Amino acid sequence: MTEEAPICEHFQRAAELIGKRWNPQVVRALQTGSTRFGDLRATIPHISDGLLSERLKELEHEGIVSREVTPSTPVLIEYHLTERGRDLTKVMDELGSWAERWAGTPV
Amino acid sequence: MTEEAPICEHFQRAAELIGKRWNPQVVRALQTGSTRFGDLRATIPHISDGLLSERLKELEHEGIVSREVTPSTPVLIEYHLTERGRDLTKVMDELGSWAERWAGTPV
Repeated sequence: MTEEAPICEHFQRAAELIGKRWNPQVVRALQTGSTRFGDLRATIPHISDGLLSERLKELEHEGIVSREVTPSTPVLIEYHLTERGRDLTKVMDELGSWAERWAGTPV
Repeated sequence: MTEEAPICEHFQRAAELIGKRWNPQVVRALQTGSTRFGDLRATIPHISDGLLSERLKELEHEGIVSREVTPSTPVLIEYHLTERGRDLTKVMDELGSWAERWAGTPV
């Protein structure tokens, strides 16, 4: 019987963040330059308004996304990655590379 | 109005795989040497038997995990990452590094 150390708490928390439906796509879309709600929705195929809104709020709460409001007319709302969020770029790049390497190969 | 290209289909598919609850942890646990169901469950805090079993089946279907049955008494069942699954190591390593870098910093 092997005795494995449990996955560390830090990894577990990061996995809960990334292992949540739509989060990788939302982070990716912000990385590639989308800043407004409509742009994000257009960039992420099949996401609904409600889920995008919910994920943005959660990611803001997690310190991954910042929401900036410019009091123009009409009000301009923009979303950006925080430093913590930008630091996820390598994770997303590796996931993107993996996806490309295995695209089209039979499962 | 910016015009962003939609997230590519390959990334979208990879994001659906990794962006599913428990999948990052299951892949991580297999990477770090767990092979048996009981080991995996012990390595992944809070996962239930039912969800672990479901995720292993899904990951097998996606070509990430292979299930090997040795017809001993009692039967020995082992799970391993396939080549495709092992190739996710860098993604998980980057996620682990990110988790360590930001552990304990206020959100």
